[in-house]
Amino acid sequence: MATIVPHQQPTPERFFNAINAYELTEAMKAAIEVELFTAIAEGNTAAATIAKRCDAAERGVRILCDFLTIHGFLTNEGTEYALAPDAALFLDRHSRAYLGTAMEFLLTRRVREGHARLAEAVRRGGTALGEGTLERENPDWVKFAEAMMPLMHGPSEIMAAELRKGGEAHKVLDIAASHVLEVAMKNAQAMGVVDRYPLLPGSAFETDFGGDYDLVLIPNFLHHFDPPTCTTFMRKVYAALKPGGRAAIAELVPNPDRVTPPTAAAFSMMMLATTPTGDAYTFAELESISKNAGFVRVELAPPEIGLDRLVIAYR
Amino acid sequence: MATIVPHQQPTPERFFNAINAYELTEAMKAAIEVELFTAIAEGNTAAATIAKRCDAAERGVRILCDFLTIHGFLTNEGTEYALAPDAALFLDRHSRAYLGTAMEFLLTRRVREGHARLAEAVRRGGTALGEGTLERENPDWVKFAEAMMPLMHGPSEIMAAELRKGGEAHKVLDIAASHVLEVAMKNAQAMGVVDRYPLLPGSAFETDFGGDYDLVLIPNFLHHFDPPTCTTFMRKVYAALKPGGRAAIAELVPNPDRVTPPTAAAFSMMMLATTPTGDAYTFAELESISKNAGFVRVELAPPEIGLDRLVIAYR
Repeated sequence: MATIVPHQQPTPERFFNAINAYELTEAMKAAIEVELFTAIAEGNTAAATIAKRCDAAERGVRILCDFLTIHGFLTNEGTEYALAPDAALFLDRHSRAYLGTAMEFLLTRRVREGHARLAEAVRRGGTALGEGTLERENPDWVKFAEAMMPLMHGPSEIMAAELRKGGEAHKVLDIAASHVLEVAMKNAQAMGVVDRYPLLPGSAFETDFGGDYDLVLIPNFLHHFDPPTCTTFMRKVYAALKPGGRAAIAELVPNPDRVTPPTAAAFSMMMLATTPTGDAYTFAELESISKNAGFVRVELAPPEIGLDRLVIAYR
Repeated sequence: MATIVPHQQPTPERFFNAINAYELTEAMKAAIEVELFTAIAEGNTAAATIAKRCDAAERGVRILCDFLTIHGFLTNEGTEYALAPDAALFLDRHSRAYLGTAMEFLLTRRVREGHARLAEAVRRGGTALGEGTLERENPDWVKFAEAMMPLMHGPSEIMAAELRKGGEAHKVLDIAASHVLEVAMKNAQAMGVVDRYPLLPGSAFETDFGGDYDLVLIPNFLHHFDPPTCTTFMRKVYAALKPGGRAAIAELVPNPDRVTPPTAAAFSMMMLATTPTGDAYTFAELESISKNAGFVRVELAPPEIGLDRLVIAYR
């Protein structure tokens, strides 16, 4: 999220730009669809040659490139465009860290509809869509799991390194949205660990976890639920851990002011629009949830795990 | 538009924030609908009391207020919220400069749809919606005229003062979208100038303007059309002016780089999404259009007219 520079004089500009903010969403979507970033990565730098590669109109490409330059995804020098570093790494289809596939999940019809009915969500204090994105048979989670794989590779390595500092974990439980197990199994096959990757299908609230775990991973799960539900869940995690075992919670964690850092803090809005009672929890809230579930000590680990922070709860 | 601060390390954060940019549009829309800014202006500063005034849930209001704080429309101190100066002036329903009514025009279904089909617009080099917002019987222009009146009061005074420096204008032609004449007449009645405010209904491209004008005002009109159409139109304006008369063009005018200032430059995208051939023109382009139409001298006047600049073409 860009830094806000306060205007000296009141101006309607901020209002207009906020009302028109959706144009950036649509511009990113269009650019990924026509493979604009990939075209530039391939060495096309003028609107005419980019347009040819994208099978698009020069005028359309010129206006889109200028717009993306304004928003920091491209740079320009005269009539030549180049990719900004973030765009080169994440938006070129040839890059290992390509994120374009995540777009489809991030902008599913239900997520957009939840926001289109945001006034209703504000009035009722939760999504206007019933169960929102938490409905049991939501196939979007499969798309999500597939799309997030390249993105999560780096952060999961940071997380593993951080957790290894607290000792090796021999028996690990990894909590996930139930529908992504097929994707998880494919990933396990690709990584050659399928013989030590048993699955426990079913709802994380109902399925028997077994016990004696050294470590339970809870990545981006708790934000979908209210604190009492999180506490109930964490009690179940506590019971499944060995004495001295750890629960590793990865979450977007806003500061106590709830407005910084901006991306983590803004995530509350996504939860309001798309879930009945979800939220972005502060460390104090995650600590309280964990302690109410029986954990004796709760820490905020130093490194950033992508956009997440890592909270470690000790049994 | 907020200033872009480049990240030191490549991060997917900018991508996520761009994909989710539409959340700010929806949040502004929801806040205006539930009268959140007005509630705060009336002295409600805690989520609970704001919620009561807005007939909304405290949790919904808290999340919305935090989100608007992140985006600079509110400030917070502990659990108390206050309006940022822009929000106090433009978003409190009791303010003379209230802009909330402009939202409806800015977010009409057709404008949103044009953006939802932006990849198509990029491919063809113009809106995917046929005539886009320029269709003849588009009632949105009436909404627009009504909504823009409070907003344009200040800028029109700046424009009048600037034009007065070049001498008094006794006979003035004001170009407008044809459907807004009824709104213009209501405004003229309210201002007590109806006896010297004759109307010329019909298309600005076809209606006989008459002649001997000292001044022709062309506010936010040319950006809807391509340069040849603008030139044809400016020839008609030229013919209607007295020798020594002036055409006053108010437009969002980007710099020659087409990416600064950001709001004016980004307006090209609105034209791509919603019109067949419209654009935000640089001063050099407006000068060229005017000179091709016969004008002898073209100036960029110093003051900002709201988000517009004033270009004066001399016959």
